[in-house]
Amino acid sequence: MNAHYFEHPLNEKTRIYLRVEALLTQLDTAAHFDDDMKYLIFYRSLFDLVEIFEQIQLKSELAKDIEKQRLTYRSWLDVEGVDQDMLNEVLDEIDMAHSDLMTAERFGQSLKDDRFLSTIRQRFNLPGGCCCFDLPALHHWLHLPLAQKQNDAKNWLTSLQPLVHSLKLWLRLTRETGAFHAVWAKSGFYQSDADEANILRLNLPLGAGVYPMISGHKNRFAIKFIEFESGQASCSEFEFELAICS
Amino acid sequence: MNAHYFEHPLNEKTRIYLRVEALLTQLDTAAHFDDDMKYLIFYRSLFDLVEIFEQIQLKSELAKDIEKQRLTYRSWLDVEGVDQDMLNEVLDEIDMAHSDLMTAERFGQSLKDDRFLSTIRQRFNLPGGCCCFDLPALHHWLHLPLAQKQNDAKNWLTSLQPLVHSLKLWLRLTRETGAFHAVWAKSGFYQSDADEANILRLNLPLGAGVYPMISGHKNRFAIKFIEFESGQASCSEFEFELAICS
Repeated sequence: MNAHYFEHPLNEKTRIYLRVEALLTQLDTAAHFDDDMKYLIFYRSLFDLVEIFEQIQLKSELAKDIEKQRLTYRSWLDVEGVDQDMLNEVLDEIDMAHSDLMTAERFGQSLKDDRFLSTIRQRFNLPGGCCCFDLPALHHWLHLPLAQKQNDAKNWLTSLQPLVHSLKLWLRLTRETGAFHAVWAKSGFYQSDADEANILRLNLPLGAGVYPMISGHKNRFAIKFIEFESGQASCSEFEFELAICS
Repeated sequence: MNAHYFEHPLNEKTRIYLRVEALLTQLDTAAHFDDDMKYLIFYRSLFDLVEIFEQIQLKSELAKDIEKQRLTYRSWLDVEGVDQDMLNEVLDEIDMAHSDLMTAERFGQSLKDDRFLSTIRQRFNLPGGCCCFDLPALHHWLHLPLAQKQNDAKNWLTSLQPLVHSLKLWLRLTRETGAFHAVWAKSGFYQSDADEANILRLNLPLGAGVYPMISGHKNRFAIKFIEFESGQASCSEFEFELAICS
């Protein structure tokens, strides 16, 4: 791999969306329980999600954002040069995701109501708190047949489907709004305007040996590159790819 | 597997020892980074350990306990019927572990001093906080060649070797003090005396469908069995294996 793909949210809401997306991906992969440690990732991600659901009204935020996307796409109906078949396909997808969302329970409610999950949730975050004596019920569960464990995971994740559906759609459509173009970092620095943007996407050349520290908001952002080896601000000039997505 | 192996510490110090042992095992396995998610377990376990090191003086506790074991084993020198070769081997092991411990840094000190680890430690515990925008340095590190990542892990873990050495020895010798014998749970309950014990070890028949809730201290303990399916106290009678280790 020659490039380091990197994303940065330009507002707090998108920050949460990207974190939730990462947790959902971790859940999906870990839910196979195909080695002895995947359960650690599975439950940690699940409980992290429940914590996020408790902190913010993710469902209504997402419903508003999906609705905004619907309005944008609708405004392109009958506009010359816009592929109407493709547009209608997207609008159908949006309608389905939105209606799924409207009929869904409060995100995480069935996870919070689950007796087994509530038994283990609290101790799970203690340092080293996954031992059998801390979580005897969990360790019994670990001895169940693989198919039964996978089935439990599937049931828990089913309740999150409306979230998965809407979030993936919103992020996909958002990411599609920006095309990558090549830009130059000068003295390890790049800045630019953004027009009501939500996400910056970067492809960084790994050879540059830097990672980005990004500050900014929806209308303006600055990227300071840090040398990984020294931890100091980079002074290099190099090309990278950038997409600004609203 | 027909039995569920279960351990329970009978004092707070042993509770910490067992948690630390579990974290060290997780670290060891995860340090291969043989799939995309192992790093989550690796860093979580490492930071959990550092947190435990901050909370208790693990090194001096362990030194005292190893010293106690040395005195016990020394008292068997020249006692008839005791295999003196084996005893001397154990005493040599104890001497080495103890001297390793005495010359070791405060546990976790080099991990706390490591610039890279300190950069990522704080955000790692945020719910979903392992995204690239939360931990850009970590995501750069993830793109390094596997051998380099494994080497970093090896260097971090090397500083923990005196801990690993002493803790494993203390736990091994402690576990060896108790032999398994068959006992019966009556009405889902078992209780007994323990003589200055540190750890209870149980082999539970999986078919019984129960897990243990254990209360007690070094001289007395009670095991209440809970039905996994119902979450209610079990009323069954069944045989299981128990070892009381001091």
